[in-house]
Amino acid sequence: MCHSNEADGETNDVITFDLMEPRSYAIIGTGALGGFYGARLQRAGCDVHFLLHTDYEHVARHGLICESKDGDFALPRVNAYRDVRDMPRCDVVVVALKAMQNHLLPELLPPVVKDGGAVLVMQNGLGGDEEVAKIVGPQRVMGGLCFLCSNKVGPGHIRHLDYGHVVLSEFSQRGVSERMRGIADDFQRAAIPIQLAEDLAIGRWQKLVWNIPYNGLSVILNATTAELMADPHTRVLAEQIMWEVVTDAAACGRCIAPDFVQEMLDRTDRMKPYRTSMKIDFDERRPMEVEAIFGNPLRATQQAGAKSPLIETLYRHLKFLDARNRVA
Amino acid sequence: MCHSNEADGETNDVITFDLMEPRSYAIIGTGALGGFYGARLQRAGCDVHFLLHTDYEHVARHGLICESKDGDFALPRVNAYRDVRDMPRCDVVVVALKAMQNHLLPELLPPVVKDGGAVLVMQNGLGGDEEVAKIVGPQRVMGGLCFLCSNKVGPGHIRHLDYGHVVLSEFSQRGVSERMRGIADDFQRAAIPIQLAEDLAIGRWQKLVWNIPYNGLSVILNATTAELMADPHTRVLAEQIMWEVVTDAAACGRCIAPDFVQEMLDRTDRMKPYRTSMKIDFDERRPMEVEAIFGNPLRATQQAGAKSPLIETLYRHLKFLDARNRVA
Repeated sequence: MCHSNEADGETNDVITFDLMEPRSYAIIGTGALGGFYGARLQRAGCDVHFLLHTDYEHVARHGLICESKDGDFALPRVNAYRDVRDMPRCDVVVVALKAMQNHLLPELLPPVVKDGGAVLVMQNGLGGDEEVAKIVGPQRVMGGLCFLCSNKVGPGHIRHLDYGHVVLSEFSQRGVSERMRGIADDFQRAAIPIQLAEDLAIGRWQKLVWNIPYNGLSVILNATTAELMADPHTRVLAEQIMWEVVTDAAACGRCIAPDFVQEMLDRTDRMKPYRTSMKIDFDERRPMEVEAIFGNPLRATQQAGAKSPLIETLYRHLKFLDARNRVA
Repeated sequence: MCHSNEADGETNDVITFDLMEPRSYAIIGTGALGGFYGARLQRAGCDVHFLLHTDYEHVARHGLICESKDGDFALPRVNAYRDVRDMPRCDVVVVALKAMQNHLLPELLPPVVKDGGAVLVMQNGLGGDEEVAKIVGPQRVMGGLCFLCSNKVGPGHIRHLDYGHVVLSEFSQRGVSERMRGIADDFQRAAIPIQLAEDLAIGRWQKLVWNIPYNGLSVILNATTAELMADPHTRVLAEQIMWEVVTDAAACGRCIAPDFVQEMLDRTDRMKPYRTSMKIDFDERRPMEVEAIFGNPLRATQQAGAKSPLIETLYRHLKFLDARNRVA
């Protein structure tokens, strides 16, 4: 689970992006995240193909609507599919499903990735990159860290509330590849701020420094980020949990600068009261990404020989709540 | 906070109980616990004096009612008081308040303890014995561990559901004293099973092995003991927390036999689904005994140089929930 590329003798050759512009995109999972990024790319002139499930009929007929703090727009016609076998093979296949649906990927990905194409995993937590690597081979895998605050408010109807920037990396090597630059061009044309990062794993762990305390505590204590920051006990606890994530990342070979913890606390202090994505899933009685955000980092840390008592405690609380939430 | 009597040169002299039978009892706090034990003692012929607050008028007029699995009974006349200055000095003063009210003890205890009398602390958690020792002197203090399942269902009306036995110890020395035997005689006459234990501190820690996981998790996860035992994650978590309490007790000089953890798990498996006392307080929006059951053991362990990450996590969750519960 703990992805490392520090093996002796590995070369840092840049992977060549064998496809010329314009690049085609497949969006696997057209929800709050996939719908938002896909719609922005299509509006910017990219060739985008959307896989849908429950919203298929509606979107095939009416397209997508994106309300956004950056300006609302509608796409009355989009390429909508309910079966990957009807989709064209694409240059960039964006995995925008929740991690609980990753068991579907062995069926979904192979028909839609072009020879020489890439799969861009835009998921929370750890483990998704590795699952995709097993299906399409590690060289095809790229990871995107999404800092996006959006909801799906109706069929094909996305409300973009805040943020939206992406940090893009290769999975199977460090450094900035040519195809990273190509995708970054498309995102920039789509007015999506994008940053190229040399190490995917450190980015995934950094995101966990925020996601683990706030997603976990918000569900367990039925609280917004603002409530958690206002109470002296949960504020200390959030910080203690952040330090445990930093320690776990170090055990897995990824050094996060100590300033990062204070930066996350300060950023959370400045945020509007925020209901985390896991809390939204919980409140709407959907399964939560407990394994991706908690279970996989825990197991990675245990394999590295370290312990994570706080994260394990949160994990077990969440497993209990998730199981009861789905029975009820 | 960590009570120890292992100082060199200490003698194990038995404290002489200077009062002949019949012993008089003052019940400081006539609720589910004090009302139950006091009513049983009075029914057995002891001279009992009850301090009351909100229920004073009702109990002064109508006495106490005790519904019990062992047989219902009523005491139409009891010695009821609303001010300790009206009470006679008694041989045994039973502290049956919740620990949150211990700030009242410096005012309540001195007027009611007879010269040569004892104060029997029947509270959960750690810290109460020490607080009482500061007020009346350590030699007067005795501790009672109560395994009682009862509720106050109306003014002067107690419902005894299950259990009820008491483990009695001296606070300021180990061993079995004469006054322990005297009190045990009274309790036995009152049909209250009583056991004499040589070390109060180990008993307090043993009780925490159960109280910390089940009181904490039941409130945080809104769950009965049966639900916590049925889920594999909370079952493991409860056991991990128990081991942390055992480790903390050891750091504070009290060795609990390792079998004890399994015994507590087995006992909980056999219990009817049970709403813990802390959960009842929480549900009724009363303050919870977070400091006595969590905060004081934590601080004792920290003073001993050890860490308790799981208990500290529970503590901070509970402090958050307690604060919000009282605002709401």
